[in-house]
Amino acid sequence: MSSTWGNNIKLSIFGGSHTGAIGVVLDNLPPNEKIDLDAVRVQMARRAPGKDKTATTRVEADEPEILSGLLDGVTTGAPLAAIIHNTNMRSKDYADLKVHPRPGHADYTAAVRYDGANDIRGGGHFSGRLTACLVFAGAVCRQILARRGITIGAHALQIGTAKDAPFDPVHISAEDLDALNTRFFSVTDPAAEAAMREEIENARLDADSLGGIIECAAVGVPAGIGSPMFGGIENVFSSILYGIPAVKGVEFGAGFSVAGMRGSENNDPFYYDENGCVKTETNHAGGILGGITTGMPILFRLAVKPTPSIGKAQKTVDLSTKQNDTLTITGRHDPCIVPRAIPVAEAAAAIALMDLMR
Amino acid sequence: MSSTWGNNIKLSIFGGSHTGAIGVVLDNLPPNEKIDLDAVRVQMARRAPGKDKTATTRVEADEPEILSGLLDGVTTGAPLAAIIHNTNMRSKDYADLKVHPRPGHADYTAAVRYDGANDIRGGGHFSGRLTACLVFAGAVCRQILARRGITIGAHALQIGTAKDAPFDPVHISAEDLDALNTRFFSVTDPAAEAAMREEIENARLDADSLGGIIECAAVGVPAGIGSPMFGGIENVFSSILYGIPAVKGVEFGAGFSVAGMRGSENNDPFYYDENGCVKTETNHAGGILGGITTGMPILFRLAVKPTPSIGKAQKTVDLSTKQNDTLTITGRHDPCIVPRAIPVAEAAAAIALMDLMR
Amino acid sequence: MSSTWGNNIKLSIFGGSHTGAIGVVLDNLPPNEKIDLDAVRVQMARRAPGKDKTATTRVEADEPEILSGLLDGVTTGAPLAAIIHNTNMRSKDYADLKVHPRPGHADYTAAVRYDGANDIRGGGHFSGRLTACLVFAGAVCRQILARRGITIGAHALQIGTAKDAPFDPVHISAEDLDALNTRFFSVTDPAAEAAMREEIENARLDADSLGGIIECAAVGVPAGIGSPMFGGIENVFSSILYGIPAVKGVEFGAGFSVAGMRGSENNDPFYYDENGCVKTETNHAGGILGGITTGMPILFRLAVKPTPSIGKAQKTVDLSTKQNDTLTITGRHDPCIVPRAIPVAEAAAAIALMDLMR
Amino acid sequence: MSSTWGNNIKLSIFGGSHTGAIGVVLDNLPPNEKIDLDAVRVQMARRAPGKDKTATTRVEADEPEILSGLLDGVTTGAPLAAIIHNTNMRSKDYADLKVHPRPGHADYTAAVRYDGANDIRGGGHFSGRLTACLVFAGAVCRQILARRGITIGAHALQIGTAKDAPFDPVHISAEDLDALNTRFFSVTDPAAEAAMREEIENARLDADSLGGIIECAAVGVPAGIGSPMFGGIENVFSSILYGIPAVKGVEFGAGFSVAGMRGSENNDPFYYDENGCVKTETNHAGGILGGITTGMPILFRLAVKPTPSIGKAQKTVDLSTKQNDTLTITGRHDPCIVPRAIPVAEAAAAIALMDLMR
Repeated sequence: MSSTWGNNIKLSIFGGSHTGAIGVVLDNLPPNEKIDLDAVRVQMARRAPGKDKTATTRVEADEPEILSGLLDGVTTGAPLAAIIHNTNMRSKDYADLKVHPRPGHADYTAAVRYDGANDIRGGGHFSGRLTACLVFAGAVCRQILARRGITIGAHALQIGTAKDAPFDPVHISAEDLDALNTRFFSVTDPAAEAAMREEIENARLDADSLGGIIECAAVGVPAGIGSPMFGGIENVFSSILYGIPAVKGVEFGAGFSVAGMRGSENNDPFYYDENGCVKTETNHAGGILGGITTGMPILFRLAVKPTPSIGKAQKTVDLSTKQNDTLTITGRHDPCIVPRAIPVAEAAAAIALMDLMR
Repeated sequence: MSSTWGNNIKLSIFGGSHTGAIGVVLDNLPPNEKIDLDAVRVQMARRAPGKDKTATTRVEADEPEILSGLLDGVTTGAPLAAIIHNTNMRSKDYADLKVHPRPGHADYTAAVRYDGANDIRGGGHFSGRLTACLVFAGAVCRQILARRGITIGAHALQIGTAKDAPFDPVHISAEDLDALNTRFFSVTDPAAEAAMREEIENARLDADSLGGIIECAAVGVPAGIGSPMFGGIENVFSSILYGIPAVKGVEFGAGFSVAGMRGSENNDPFYYDENGCVKTETNHAGGILGGITTGMPILFRLAVKPTPSIGKAQKTVDLSTKQNDTLTITGRHDPCIVPRAIPVAEAAAAIALMDLMR
Repeated sequence: MSSTWGNNIKLSIFGGSHTGAIGVVLDNLPPNEKIDLDAVRVQMARRAPGKDKTATTRVEADEPEILSGLLDGVTTGAPLAAIIHNTNMRSKDYADLKVHPRPGHADYTAAVRYDGANDIRGGGHFSGRLTACLVFAGAVCRQILARRGITIGAHALQIGTAKDAPFDPVHISAEDLDALNTRFFSVTDPAAEAAMREEIENARLDADSLGGIIECAAVGVPAGIGSPMFGGIENVFSSILYGIPAVKGVEFGAGFSVAGMRGSENNDPFYYDENGCVKTETNHAGGILGGITTGMPILFRLAVKPTPSIGKAQKTVDLSTKQNDTLTITGRHDPCIVPRAIPVAEAAAAIALMDLMR
Repeated sequence: MSSTWGNNIKLSIFGGSHTGAIGVVLDNLPPNEKIDLDAVRVQMARRAPGKDKTATTRVEADEPEILSGLLDGVTTGAPLAAIIHNTNMRSKDYADLKVHPRPGHADYTAAVRYDGANDIRGGGHFSGRLTACLVFAGAVCRQILARRGITIGAHALQIGTAKDAPFDPVHISAEDLDALNTRFFSVTDPAAEAAMREEIENARLDADSLGGIIECAAVGVPAGIGSPMFGGIENVFSSILYGIPAVKGVEFGAGFSVAGMRGSENNDPFYYDENGCVKTETNHAGGILGGITTGMPILFRLAVKPTPSIGKAQKTVDLSTKQNDTLTITGRHDPCIVPRAIPVAEAAAAIALMDLMR
């Protein structure tokens, strides 16, 4: 199935970039949960375009209209449904793409998958704009999780060659994450932001784009969440995280660096803390053993590919003439989507935890 | 859910390391598919323990007994069910672990998750032995996929500091993969195997263990398989790949290296090949755009953590006295599970493709 | 899960009677299917209220707004999403029901289920109005099924004591069904309609309501659709049919009358027809054996309870004072929902078949 | 999917009548639940064949072998898996059926569905023998439910023309049900059993078979279980109940008799009982409003068709010669499966409630 996700909750995302609206349904949320829509708007604004030169200049209001599931600001237990109207569309930008698939985009694969019937305008159902629905759903879930003591936050760990200071896998705190999780272009080291912005600006001036790595943490998750084999935190998280366009890798804890480690180094020693809680001295496991939470911070990283839409001329094919051809993409694009993808990663983590803890 | 997986097929895995048998059910396979059980045994033998010094000396016959779904060697359309009897168990090795959870293992998290009721013997349902069920199911699926022109193979890309030559993302062929996918300790460069074996032997002599990276490819997958958002190749593959114990990272195509790339470099230019097929000059996408196959080789890498069971004394807790303590694990263990995990990775890929193409 | 249904397609229904809109998402429809929205409107008009004295006088436009999945009248393969705006709401009619649950309604059970948070206005997510979403989705599916030779139609078999002539289980034809499946108050015998209308009018004048039985048939369904055990036609159909409010029974073929039959009478003899097709002389099986279609007409019946909203004073409780009390329901209600439920039954059958044949 | 069922638990059934064994997996049961295997055997014995002249003389031990999920008689939280060995098979009885499909059986539809590959021996995966797996799973679930105050029991309401006294929908008690739910040929009125046995014997002597109606109740289910639309008690129950071979109708509460009732008669008035609990004076709803339990007894009825295997000569086709033909079935058959189906109905109800309350 393409756009439905979840076991204990059901997330359904619909709409396209250039239709009347996009929308989202979140089924089986707990009732009687107060939802602050202003806090939801803060999250949606972090993802919204048009903020600065690092992002596309396309501006969207991104105001959700609630159709069910909320009454007087409290969840009713009915499916929480919202639509976000599309206010700013320039379909002419996309007219040519049915013939000339954009390298790195889904234009070609979607045409094959849907036998040419797919709506190409703005990427249709493949549009990054649909991540607004994830952010809405995640912003609702994170408020419910917060009342259970859980805090989620992320930052740009790397953009191009510029790197931010990584999270401390053992000591990262709710306070640390709350200092990040309402910001645009979240980083732990201000110097990193400057370096990242410079690399993005250089890419933009070259009519090119940059990729990066997002690091995300969830603290306050109790031990014992998740299940063995296919019900593990890693399985559930990655199954939704790969729903974020441009993600090409997901790793947990020490991730790929475990390849060079020995067991004696990678194993996290258990100990009792001053409160009689079992903790681990290190956290190479990223808070997960056997798919189940240890109670230590959950840590994961996402590899985000450079925006495929670039101004440079690119080699492609002409599907009408069946000849090789070149394409120069016009329209408004992000030289780097990493800053806008940070709240999306947090949102996906919140939805995944809501599903696992429901 | 822990041990049930799949949308178009349903995989159900049961049993534990120290019960009478482990077993697997694969529901909704196509009927009238001839299954060569000798070819299945070849795959199971690649995973089976007791092969050499790189693996545990525990020996298991791993002979599957078919209970339904096959008649005269042909699939009937009924659920394909098989059990694999456990012939070699030393439960005494595990008596102490309820009190002293092993660092890096699920002993502690399972105890919390299942309120102390979990079967600890041999890791119970968390045992790596259950991957024999994945290999059985994958060995069945890969025979069906082979008749549709699909070939899957993997190798040890890295163990400790020793590295094998990576697959050519564009030109990797069915012949290349068939040269690997029936071998134990599959590598593309014989010199790499020698270096890897030496590192493993050194770890073993140090009563320690090593992690690694497995690279897997699937060729012959037609363009247009998979769906946007949550039905993508990456979502489906990772949701089963993280069911392999010790996997801490999954990346596709260029994976985490996209972070340092520009769009002009990462985008794979389209062109028409001599047969009028659309191909890409490079394959940073790992054969996947928008979650949907391009027709180029599907490529992914798994980060496999070092076996947590090591002979060295380790810090842990005593859950009975609530004191910090130390643990020295006895019994038979793999200094490196990467060689045995290679056929498991291939099997998981085969099951995932069977689900996506059913 | 409450409002998400389906295996091969995913149906998601959201909204409430007194919110801005209700809506529906249908994920994984085949692409390139032409959808005639006027034909969809015909189906929605059959269910819409305000038609005559047999139904509530509440009038709704029920005009669907498509948000994705259709482009130039053709399915794109993206989730087909539509919202139907609520134009006519009298919330004051419902103010008292939080305290005095209506007998036969979900007011009390929803209050317990959702800890009092449920939206009571117009029944909230329990409103029969949400069946408009089923009719929309079914109207789309039946057009796709029609191109595969499948026709669905239903009629009022019984209302109160008035009975219509039942379908001929063997010879019911597409023509017979097409003569019914665009009508309001569909019956095979005009005399039956008059008798039914008279009973309904008598009930209305008594400030009371009537139940009935709907009989539905699907012809042209090829043999071999469905699966044993839990994937059978009966399992799948009933799992969606019980989603229609007021349905208290579902039977297939001879249904409950099999209780008094002998095997020699109930078994349907096989024979080859003039075209060399296997048929059955009788069709007590309702076109289903072992959960799988025989190729004969699929036949099922729904028991529809009398509308619980009646003008008569009824005994109920006062949940605030915890005293027994009486309730007299005001507002606009259907003396009999059977006529409006007929297109809903057809729609549910179309969605179920779409799921089974996708 | 054919043989996997459930949302909050996953039931997987495998094996066939004439393979080495049949088996069942129940995933996601709560841990630390004590399971009395003798009580499980009592339930399996109620379903087992060879009991008396009302059933087939084929004798099966039906002793389950537990492969995981139970340790020292307590659930571990791992998938509860059991196999039941097939000890008594006469395959020769079935050799002819590939050519001559039995009327009323799935021989023909399975051949079409599985392109002739289906295992016909003993009905293969369509065999009623697989209901032993349902009874095993249900016997485990009902023990867990019993600790939550829930009791389930059923009886033969009708066989042929002989009728038993129906349950009192309001006052049926746990004691009433416990007096029935360990018996073979459960009835409330001993005189009914005699009459039913006589009708069955007459059918048997005529080489014919009889159908019937099973009535089942569950008491002690708290109010508030179930969800609107597709997550209702009726949807979930019927989706598993139709997995019992020969079931052609399922109704809840007043069921099909609602057709002739008025709202003022069918609505169940609410009142506060002496303990301050909300109850209903009548229970036409069968304990379900809006798909959610009211706290009153859950009541449902199953229509069970006469065993299709009869000794009389029947008309059928010869699929090899494509000619019409006749068939006389030899082998051992039940003249009436209703008595043996009673524990299966109770088991399915227990599994459904376990899924809904997990």
